[in-house]
Amino acid sequence: MEGNESLEEVRVELGENSYSIIIGNDILSGLGAALKELPIGEKIMVVTNPTVQELYGDITIRSLENAGFQVVMGIVPDGEQYKSMASAQALYDTAFAAGLDRKSAVLALGGGVIGDLAGFVAATYMRGVPFVQVPTTLLAQVDSSVGGKVAVNHPKGKNIIGSFYQPKLVYADINTLRTLDERQFRAGMAEVIKYGVIWDAGFFSYLEENLHKIKGMQNETLVKIVRRSCEIKAHVVEQDEKESGIRAILNYGHTFGHAIEALTNYSVFVHGEAVAIGMVTANRLAQRIGLLSQADLDRIGLLIAKTGLPVDCGNINKQAMLRKMYFDKKVQSGRIKYILPEKIGRVRITDAVDESDVLAVL
Amino acid sequence: MEGNESLEEVRVELGENSYSIIIGNDILSGLGAALKELPIGEKIMVVTNPTVQELYGDITIRSLENAGFQVVMGIVPDGEQYKSMASAQALYDTAFAAGLDRKSAVLALGGGVIGDLAGFVAATYMRGVPFVQVPTTLLAQVDSSVGGKVAVNHPKGKNIIGSFYQPKLVYADINTLRTLDERQFRAGMAEVIKYGVIWDAGFFSYLEENLHKIKGMQNETLVKIVRRSCEIKAHVVEQDEKESGIRAILNYGHTFGHAIEALTNYSVFVHGEAVAIGMVTANRLAQRIGLLSQADLDRIGLLIAKTGLPVDCGNINKQAMLRKMYFDKKVQSGRIKYILPEKIGRVRITDAVDESDVLAVL
Ligand SMILES: NC(=O)c1ccc[n+]([C@@H]2O[C@H](COP(=O)([O-])OP(=O)(O)OC[C@H]3O[C@@H](n4cnc5c(N)ncnc54)[C@H](O)[C@@H]3O)[C@@H](O)[C@H]2O)c1
Ligand SMILES: NC(=O)c1ccc[n+]([C@@H]2O[C@H](COP(=O)([O-])OP(=O)(O)OC[C@H]3O[C@@H](n4cnc5c(N)ncnc54)[C@H](O)[C@@H]3O)[C@@H](O)[C@H]2O)c1
Repeated sequence: MEGNESLEEVRVELGENSYSIIIGNDILSGLGAALKELPIGEKIMVVTNPTVQELYGDITIRSLENAGFQVVMGIVPDGEQYKSMASAQALYDTAFAAGLDRKSAVLALGGGVIGDLAGFVAATYMRGVPFVQVPTTLLAQVDSSVGGKVAVNHPKGKNIIGSFYQPKLVYADINTLRTLDERQFRAGMAEVIKYGVIWDAGFFSYLEENLHKIKGMQNETLVKIVRRSCEIKAHVVEQDEKESGIRAILNYGHTFGHAIEALTNYSVFVHGEAVAIGMVTANRLAQRIGLLSQADLDRIGLLIAKTGLPVDCGNINKQAMLRKMYFDKKVQSGRIKYILPEKIGRVRITDAVDESDVLAVL
Repeated sequence: MEGNESLEEVRVELGENSYSIIIGNDILSGLGAALKELPIGEKIMVVTNPTVQELYGDITIRSLENAGFQVVMGIVPDGEQYKSMASAQALYDTAFAAGLDRKSAVLALGGGVIGDLAGFVAATYMRGVPFVQVPTTLLAQVDSSVGGKVAVNHPKGKNIIGSFYQPKLVYADINTLRTLDERQFRAGMAEVIKYGVIWDAGFFSYLEENLHKIKGMQNETLVKIVRRSCEIKAHVVEQDEKESGIRAILNYGHTFGHAIEALTNYSVFVHGEAVAIGMVTANRLAQRIGLLSQADLDRIGLLIAKTGLPVDCGNINKQAMLRKMYFDKKVQSGRIKYILPEKIGRVRITDAVDESDVLAVL
């Protein structure tokens, strides 16, 4: 591999589904060599969109071909609405026409939309072929590329069709984040802040202290926040791969966030912005029912605001919001599970919350 | 449970994916009670087709409702062409509209087509919900309902889109086999004979000696052959859930069989008939290259013929057949893996076969 001074590795230990996350600056040209280490066949379908292809398509293809792989491109239009069964079907067609077999790999080059879609195709093409994530947004590098949740949307709801399917490798080049627009970068920061709140007070302090370096896109700082985020996510997922228990803490801010996204027709906020508002809302609920101190509530709110993320969503129909929350995939037997912080670095999962308290903080 | 004198249980041990196969005569009315033992929610989507619904819909629904479940019907038309992504999408819609959540079960009531389709929906709806198999054809009871292969067809090939997803329970009432037409019953017998050849010479002899009782639909004999078949399949699957090695022996007769089905446009032979011809072809290849004795070749051929299954497919374009075989999902890096018997009760997996020998036996 060339061009990488500091190449970091995080392991995700899931028995026979274990894999590595490689993180570094300017490492994309080393991708092909890294894939040579995996037990995969010669053919690779690279799933991406025109935006990312324009920026990183050539270097990716060159790296793969130099390592002896035969590359097939699977291009889908840019946008969340293309994380669909129709796109999956187009990719199955491409894969089949190109003669991909059970050893051929599917590689996602892009953000969370591409990762989730390509992962679903990898999970279901010929009952599952090797899958590789090359995340190019901050959100994808710190969150969606790790942990094996793959999905497409259903006309009636997000991520309704999917499965748990772990990649064989996650390969994150933080250099790709430089072309990301600021709003998308900030959206990824919402998830980074989330890890501090749910798991690691020290990391939360690090973010407070180094926010200017993060905003300045300083190499080592970016590698550090991506690495620590992946470590925390790996740690949680290792304990509960299929989300039957503790993995739910990763949804801190998301129950409210998903409802906000849905109520505003996915047109006002990007995912990370809705999560930011959701975290603030969860904090207010936690504080109201006596779980979280005012001081911690303020500290989290301040970091979110300083990052440039929204902290409230203006006028919203409270009853409609509550109804949306009941539609969430995580709702079981009619009880909503809330992920509420007790202090920075620790959350609890609870369904013992009065609707009146929820309505009061909305 | 009522009406069952002899209720048998076979365990499939796959760690946290373990489950039981319940086999008995006239046990359908006990289905609801059996499901009460599982950790599933109140709602169950019963996937079936009009043929099976007409015969066993009422008793199934009554049993489930009596046990306190809320039943949603997901009906798809009868036929292999409905094992499709379009059918899956219609079932997602039904499930979503009925408010099925992650604890709700999907239950397949029917043959292998319904089982594979419902299983794919269960595997992918909300990233996987509990799945129950109630197989009503012999093929489904001895083969397709066990082992977790689920799939839908792609316009270009069978079972191209799917995954490995184990059921939580298989519940096989051999009484349902009485309404099956003879041709479908015989097709299932091809798989039963397969288990004898690949694994258990004693079972093969039992089939030879008890063929008249099987044809006479004698209760205990049917329970016995379903049970032993499930035991053998369970045993193989336990060693190799995802088919990276030994599981391939279950494809004895299938490499040739699939090609015959495809070449005749799935309109001349049903699956089991094609498998029967495929087994005979594999035997001739094995005998030709010195693996199998003429005596065993004759014995297997005789049992297949006496069962009423075809042993050859008439005129066939040999080159076209070979090309089809290269299109099989199991082909990796261009080598065909043959499953060839060495004697009754033992097979080997090999790709060391000359094309000229294959052409000679076609
Ligand atoms: N699987 C999971 O665990 C998980 C977790 C969180 C979110 N998600 C999913 O992730 C999706 C959101 O992902 P996202 O925020 O990455 O959005 P995205 O994939 O839509 O990417 C955002 C935009 O950035 C562009 N882009 C990507 N990389 C770029 C780069 N390096 N430079 C310039 N532009 C670039 C994309 O083309 C797109 O227009 C949602 O569908 C969400 O459901 C999944
Ligand atoms: N998942 C696996 O491991 C696996 C293994 C083998 C085959 N398969 C799949 O199974 C399918 C074939 O299954 P099949 O042979 O059961 O065919 P099928 O499901 O089409 O059933 C055959 C016919 O019998 C009818 N039927 C079902 N039960 C009946 C009953 N009790 N009485 C009267 N009629 C009844 C059906 O409506 C259908 O018309 C294929 O799609 C094949 O790919 C899967």
